[in-house]
Amino acid sequence: MKKIAIIGFGVVGRGCADLLSDNAEQIKKLTGDSVGIAHILDLRDFPGTPYEALVTHDFADIENDAEVGTVIETMGGSHPAYEYTMRALRAGKNVVTSNKEVVANFGDEFLREAEKAGVCYRFEAAVGGGIPVISPMISMLGQNKIREVRGILNGTTNFILTEMFTYGTSFDAALSDAQARGYAERDPSADILGLDAARKLVILTALATGKLFPVEKIHTEGITAIRAEDVKAAAKIGCSIKLLGRCTVGEDGEVSALVAPFLLPEELPLAGTRGVYNAVEVVGEPIGNVMFYGRGAGAGATASAVIGDLAQILCSGRHSAFPIFEKTSSGLADFANFSSQTYLVLDRKYSAFAEKAFPRAAFLESENECVLLTERMTEEAIDRTLAALGAEAISRIRMLG
Amino acid sequence: MKKIAIIGFGVVGRGCADLLSDNAEQIKKLTGDSVGIAHILDLRDFPGTPYEALVTHDFADIENDAEVGTVIETMGGSHPAYEYTMRALRAGKNVVTSNKEVVANFGDEFLREAEKAGVCYRFEAAVGGGIPVISPMISMLGQNKIREVRGILNGTTNFILTEMFTYGTSFDAALSDAQARGYAERDPSADILGLDAARKLVILTALATGKLFPVEKIHTEGITAIRAEDVKAAAKIGCSIKLLGRCTVGEDGEVSALVAPFLLPEELPLAGTRGVYNAVEVVGEPIGNVMFYGRGAGAGATASAVIGDLAQILCSGRHSAFPIFEKTSSGLADFANFSSQTYLVLDRKYSAFAEKAFPRAAFLESENECVLLTERMTEEAIDRTLAALGAEAISRIRMLG
Repeated sequence: MKKIAIIGFGVVGRGCADLLSDNAEQIKKLTGDSVGIAHILDLRDFPGTPYEALVTHDFADIENDAEVGTVIETMGGSHPAYEYTMRALRAGKNVVTSNKEVVANFGDEFLREAEKAGVCYRFEAAVGGGIPVISPMISMLGQNKIREVRGILNGTTNFILTEMFTYGTSFDAALSDAQARGYAERDPSADILGLDAARKLVILTALATGKLFPVEKIHTEGITAIRAEDVKAAAKIGCSIKLLGRCTVGEDGEVSALVAPFLLPEELPLAGTRGVYNAVEVVGEPIGNVMFYGRGAGAGATASAVIGDLAQILCSGRHSAFPIFEKTSSGLADFANFSSQTYLVLDRKYSAFAEKAFPRAAFLESENECVLLTERMTEEAIDRTLAALGAEAISRIRMLG
Repeated sequence: MKKIAIIGFGVVGRGCADLLSDNAEQIKKLTGDSVGIAHILDLRDFPGTPYEALVTHDFADIENDAEVGTVIETMGGSHPAYEYTMRALRAGKNVVTSNKEVVANFGDEFLREAEKAGVCYRFEAAVGGGIPVISPMISMLGQNKIREVRGILNGTTNFILTEMFTYGTSFDAALSDAQARGYAERDPSADILGLDAARKLVILTALATGKLFPVEKIHTEGITAIRAEDVKAAAKIGCSIKLLGRCTVGEDGEVSALVAPFLLPEELPLAGTRGVYNAVEVVGEPIGNVMFYGRGAGAGATASAVIGDLAQILCSGRHSAFPIFEKTSSGLADFANFSSQTYLVLDRKYSAFAEKAFPRAAFLESENECVLLTERMTEEAIDRTLAALGAEAISRIRMLG
């Protein structure tokens, strides 16, 4: 029997334990051995459950158990996940995690430490929940030049935007509905301000480029400023609004990365991603566009990704093609140079001036506001033009493509 | 240097050679060594190209070259691809292929022979062109119960159906357009009759279940009978028509598999697959629905999948989780028991009778015909009801979901 430990026994940790027991026969068939949980680290005791006897409150019990080959980290947060992960790797144990925060912040250190110890550090569940994203990206990396990775990386915000699009509701009403259904947390700020998506983008960018950028260096906008009017205006021109994480890699290797709402023409494959689903699209040469789509969260889907990593490790061990990340801020393009067509809403008193200031923009019909879609312009050029007008944008949303 | 041979130097074989040279630096970085082409087997000589010196017309030159570790088979067709593949495996060489016909017909023998010889047989490019489908399916197999695999597996037919949907054209006109653009071959029968999709479905079904069913046992319908009127009627009820390959696995392990046109409600993720793109959706427990989308054909995309397999082999060698297929016809459900809602078109003289014969059907408005959507019924029950009416269906298309 292969012994493992689970640290953090919340929804995902419990989902992993359930999956190991529900599909035990299959997992045994695949890996050639059964998998048993030797320890569960949590602050709680779970009295009266089958897990009670496995609970420990001391990580040293896991660290010192030589029979434990793999630690599943489903605690979330940076600390003490960071310390426990490092201790597990140093003790010669593989670590599998669903914790995007700790991967985004410290993935480089973990991968180096794992390399040194001859064990694996894996995190398929940290991006896109259950969707295999990292495994197929690895299988594309060697032979393709990755030009862009873009994705709908946060189910909560996508649910809110889908509600706004489908029912014409306001952001506040859609957020309340998401909270009532359990899709948004009571404090939803990490989701709606874009931080969760930024962490996942940092991980995807590192896979594509080897560079792990600090999350705080990524230009990040949430969806709180999006108005029902914007969603309606987008629909009129055949677009939906989606929160995207997006990185592009230039010919010179310079990386442009941001998290922000985008207008997506309905014919683009990402535009079909509705509700709490996630999708990641990768553009490479010569492969072209490929997209991976599925449930971005939930105990079962996330556990599938965690236990998938575990099964891969038990079957095949280290994968020499798995990249090592380098933590750096260099090579990240200045956001002022980011260029796109941009949807702008200004007070209608600027209408006449705006037509002169943005001579190649398309002006959309609107009763109360000045609404336009600029030609492809840099952020800096738009800022400069607005400053010259003396106007502040009521809404400003980039367009994809 | 790792030496390889390419057998069959058509569009895909040449695409592989181009990719190995275009992205040589990356591939070397990933695999730790450069990859060189030692032999190219083809009937032609390619005089005046850089490949001229590598050409052989005798497979024995490859078989007997102990330095060749991997053979890339991009010949297509069953013979002599079968014989060369067996000889290569027996000579201790890995084989990577893009040839769905030979995998669908003989994949079981190749995987067993590879196992015996301690080498790899890989075929990511045989399904979905460049899209990583097989690699992410492998990463889901161990820990999920796969319930269904369904996909848009043929770009030619999807292009034709997309044209019919977008422009209201007839099948014949759309086929001519596809031929003019090079998306359909001069003899398009393997595509439009569903055989190409059936081969890919057989491979996907084998991945999900371990059972390699004979292609001729799969109920296969093409798209030649689909009329512009059917596409319009489908659009009126919010559906597009797509040629799907679909297998479902029952609780008892019985497999239902078919290739046929389906009505797809526009909100389903597969419905967004337009033109020559392909997509494969897998439904598993607990992962839910996941979908993989991208270019299903073309030299660059297909070469990406072939060279991806090669890179994986060079990096990691054998993957113990890769399933071995068993060739069998047992466990395949009787098609008469397949059940779905079905779109039926009858001569309008049957209208009054049809309302009695299909009391729970929805009747759609039509000037000239009797058009209905049945409740969920088995094929057998529909056959029986039509026979009792004395009617033959003018159109009969199942609905997904």
